[in-house]
Amino acid sequence: MRIAIDAMGGDNAPDEIIAGVIESIEFLAEDDELILVGPENEIEARLPSKPSRRGNISVVHAPDIIAMDDVPIESLRRKPKSSIATIAKLAKRDQADAVISAGNTGACVAAFQMRMRNLPGVNRPGIAVVFPTPGGLVTICDVGANIACKPVHLYQYGVMASVYSKHLLGIENPRIGLMSIGSEDAKGNELVKKTRALMKSDPRMNFVGNIEGRDIFRGACEVVVTEGFVGNVILKLTEGLVDGLFKAIKDELMEEKIRLAMKFKPVMKRIYKKYDYNEYGGALLLGVNGTAVICHGSSQARTIKNAILASKRFYTKKINDKIIEYLSGTSVRTMDE
Amino acid sequence: MRIAIDAMGGDNAPDEIIAGVIESIEFLAEDDELILVGPENEIEARLPSKPSRRGNISVVHAPDIIAMDDVPIESLRRKPKSSIATIAKLAKRDQADAVISAGNTGACVAAFQMRMRNLPGVNRPGIAVVFPTPGGLVTICDVGANIACKPVHLYQYGVMASVYSKHLLGIENPRIGLMSIGSEDAKGNELVKKTRALMKSDPRMNFVGNIEGRDIFRGACEVVVTEGFVGNVILKLTEGLVDGLFKAIKDELMEEKIRLAMKFKPVMKRIYKKYDYNEYGGALLLGVNGTAVICHGSSQARTIKNAILASKRFYTKKINDKIIEYLSGTSVRTMDE
Repeated sequence: MRIAIDAMGGDNAPDEIIAGVIESIEFLAEDDELILVGPENEIEARLPSKPSRRGNISVVHAPDIIAMDDVPIESLRRKPKSSIATIAKLAKRDQADAVISAGNTGACVAAFQMRMRNLPGVNRPGIAVVFPTPGGLVTICDVGANIACKPVHLYQYGVMASVYSKHLLGIENPRIGLMSIGSEDAKGNELVKKTRALMKSDPRMNFVGNIEGRDIFRGACEVVVTEGFVGNVILKLTEGLVDGLFKAIKDELMEEKIRLAMKFKPVMKRIYKKYDYNEYGGALLLGVNGTAVICHGSSQARTIKNAILASKRFYTKKINDKIIEYLSGTSVRTMDE
Repeated sequence: MRIAIDAMGGDNAPDEIIAGVIESIEFLAEDDELILVGPENEIEARLPSKPSRRGNISVVHAPDIIAMDDVPIESLRRKPKSSIATIAKLAKRDQADAVISAGNTGACVAAFQMRMRNLPGVNRPGIAVVFPTPGGLVTICDVGANIACKPVHLYQYGVMASVYSKHLLGIENPRIGLMSIGSEDAKGNELVKKTRALMKSDPRMNFVGNIEGRDIFRGACEVVVTEGFVGNVILKLTEGLVDGLFKAIKDELMEEKIRLAMKFKPVMKRIYKKYDYNEYGGALLLGVNGTAVICHGSSQARTIKNAILASKRFYTKKINDKIIEYLSGTSVRTMDE
């Protein structure tokens, strides 16, 4: 398998990205190839000089860099030789089986969608993130690829995320919940009401109805479907709140007794590890015709290593074929858009 | 001041509601009147038999009860003698200066808006909730009154929530952030982009631009403006996540050592208290021509007591007059809708 990685994406690039690529080698097969994409000099300077320690890493030169706060479409147009545009082109030309970036999310979504195209039967790709919760792994789609959602998009996010949840996370018959502001049929905005009707019309879908924000962490379902704006707020709010709460606990403990704080430290670390999204190696962009992983801007080497392994599992388990198969058997696709 | 309280609202009604009303007496003035609204027999059975211990509590009979999961408008029509409809009517007839309910939020919003009407200059009321965060008190509006928001509604939420934040919470010149999915100008959906332009057009507004979900807990601003669907998800997600995380910590500690868990208990309690929304006594429905407080369905006596005191502060400080004054000086009102 050939995996192309954007060496310049995210706040810790290129050091952490390249370190993650090197870390991943021991978990891959001999014929797996890793392609680092970015300014050649910068990458070469960070790779081990001994060819034997490089594994199957090759470098593809891409001089331009899209910054985290660049305007996505505009920057792709202005910087055609950026690392993000280049990994997308590698996928298009069938020179890579998977692409990975921790760079500008909007630019990644635009480039991957444009170059890789959508899977047959999919109208719009969506980003799926796995939340580790006390009730188990919850897959949320979409967390920011599509902020102009139609009901059919949300229906397809339900399909794709449940295929992902079942075949990649090993959850048998995952329950699908639709994010709303009350569990009753009558609640929610127009988008929710129409999506609810679509989902109910598919007897193969394990749809449990509307859920509320609090239900994500209460084991109400294994798949949460929501439009990209709301999903992105959920993702970032969760991140901020967990960090804030841990900080508050730490501050409170330090005021109390430093010894108590020290005793509590390993417990906190264990909890942090249990609920650490870095373990899940970024988010899959579901619905593009290929394997695309978008990582958090603050990704560390470990995140990148896990993203590489996640892309391999996604590719090997032929998740896309299973999505195509499901969607080819549905009549919902053409009902909207 | 005359305060009408829905005795039958919420999961713990009527016991906790009536207990909260009785608890509040000692914090009120002698000429403050409390009006409990609901089935007369049920309320009377729970009031102290000695008239001297009742303070200025009177009872208004309302035989019907709207359940938490009833469809708002429909249930108001079907149950004209419900406690929610009755407190709204008391406000309309100028027999109450404030109304409080922990019942069905949708029914409260509909009844209060219908009977009390909007403040001059306000197109749509919004629910404002105060979040205690490590960075201070953050007021979020709207958290669920209006899920078909237009830019002008969001602009007015910014005005009302900042007047509230300044004059009720004592925050000098509160900064207003607009909930989006990236801080850059170009990010966000159409509603966000148009609202941003409106807010920027008002030089009196202390608008700091777009914020992201994580910024709420990072001291980025004191007022967060968002449409009701997103705000409701934020509110409930925060609730669920805080509960879930505290539970996870407890479980992890119990596995470790019960003695450590016991030592940690008072720390947890202090943190819980610091970030406990019950302290803030429910949410104000800003924009109606009167004082209306909507409490959480799980409200305890303490919540109700705090809601009564909050309604008194809101009324006494003439927050509505200040909102009217601000809005009479703006040209934004008529630009949309």
